[in-house]
Amino acid sequence: MKTCSEIFDVRTSGKGTYDLTGKLTALVSRSGVREGTVTVFVKHTSASLVIMENADPDARRDLEEFFERLVPEGTSWFTHTCEGVDDMPSHIRMALTRTSEVIPILQGEMALGTWQGVFLFEHRRAPHHRQIVAMVSGV
Amino acid sequence: MKTCSEIFDVRTSGKGTYDLTGKLTALVSRSGVREGTVTVFVKHTSASLVIMENADPDARRDLEEFFERLVPEGTSWFTHTCEGVDDMPSHIRMALTRTSEVIPILQGEMALGTWQGVFLFEHRRAPHHRQIVAMVSGV
Amino acid sequence: MKTCSEIFDVRTSGKGTYDLTGKLTALVSRSGVREGTVTVFVKHTSASLVIMENADPDARRDLEEFFERLVPEGTSWFTHTCEGVDDMPSHIRMALTRTSEVIPILQGEMALGTWQGVFLFEHRRAPHHRQIVAMVSGV
Repeated sequence: MKTCSEIFDVRTSGKGTYDLTGKLTALVSRSGVREGTVTVFVKHTSASLVIMENADPDARRDLEEFFERLVPEGTSWFTHTCEGVDDMPSHIRMALTRTSEVIPILQGEMALGTWQGVFLFEHRRAPHHRQIVAMVSGV
Repeated sequence: MKTCSEIFDVRTSGKGTYDLTGKLTALVSRSGVREGTVTVFVKHTSASLVIMENADPDARRDLEEFFERLVPEGTSWFTHTCEGVDDMPSHIRMALTRTSEVIPILQGEMALGTWQGVFLFEHRRAPHHRQIVAMVSGV
Repeated sequence: MKTCSEIFDVRTSGKGTYDLTGKLTALVSRSGVREGTVTVFVKHTSASLVIMENADPDARRDLEEFFERLVPEGTSWFTHTCEGVDDMPSHIRMALTRTSEVIPILQGEMALGTWQGVFLFEHRRAPHHRQIVAMVSGV
């Protein structure tokens, strides 16, 4: 069994989705693992992961807008508001998407579908420095 | 360490939940793994996974209806609509559920609770051919 | 490759979030695994997992309140109501959060961020006895 891990530093410029697929593809290739998994994990509670359509950016913008409306900033009954109006919505949007995602590796490559990309979903307005752990394991 | 993988082809007949538990049970048994995990992964962005109550089909119908109402077809502000009214809702419903799920294996069997089944959640109206990757690894 | 598993029994006193982080930290330490993953899995369909802010309890209360409002008890069109008004909302809130979560292990410790805790999210009103499977694997 081989393991191979890396911590990716991603600098976000505010809310939105940021494509991690290229970094993960390179790591899996470098690991030499032919059959196994890559675990992707975000070390934050106001940013998350989503595997989403990678072709039409409109699809991601609609997804982002949906979360703006489902969990609105300025919701009157929020009590955890010390870090601003985007603080509590960020935690909830994170909880509604994913902190970890596990992608199988087959024949040395991630078994993603044609239209799947792995994205960091930044929920805070301000630029942030985010850390994503990727752990490859297999044979 | 052993790994054992399979790609399941599932033909859906439109929206709804499709039970994958039997196929996964058979694969885990065939793998010979006594302690480890099985990673289940959907290679699509308009279908997803959910581990749900397997006893009363009403529970799954209520779940499906909830998503119909939370992310309605024909939402006026969607811009990604090229593939029809069920296109963008499918992506959002996928993002709100799961693309990957990892189930521990204990004593040679998936450690599912009594009432847990693993379901493919098809979000498109039209029949689709879906691929699910299952990767068993362990000892 | 080493594997090390444990089933945690958690007695809940009704709705809310229950911190599992300490139990998981101890298991990972005991396993001797330096690099790998720990898979956490809830064996129930009316309780779930969420990795959430561990500092301010207000953040968790707001999260819980959000789910109370998003999936209200007593929703008129629910048909799966045999176990009470909190039955179907529990399943839906579970589906909107997570059944499994996979956390990388680096240098013998879970690679959680500073503010991340792993919580059981109990959705039923009555006290329940819940089982969580944790499976460590790695080198």
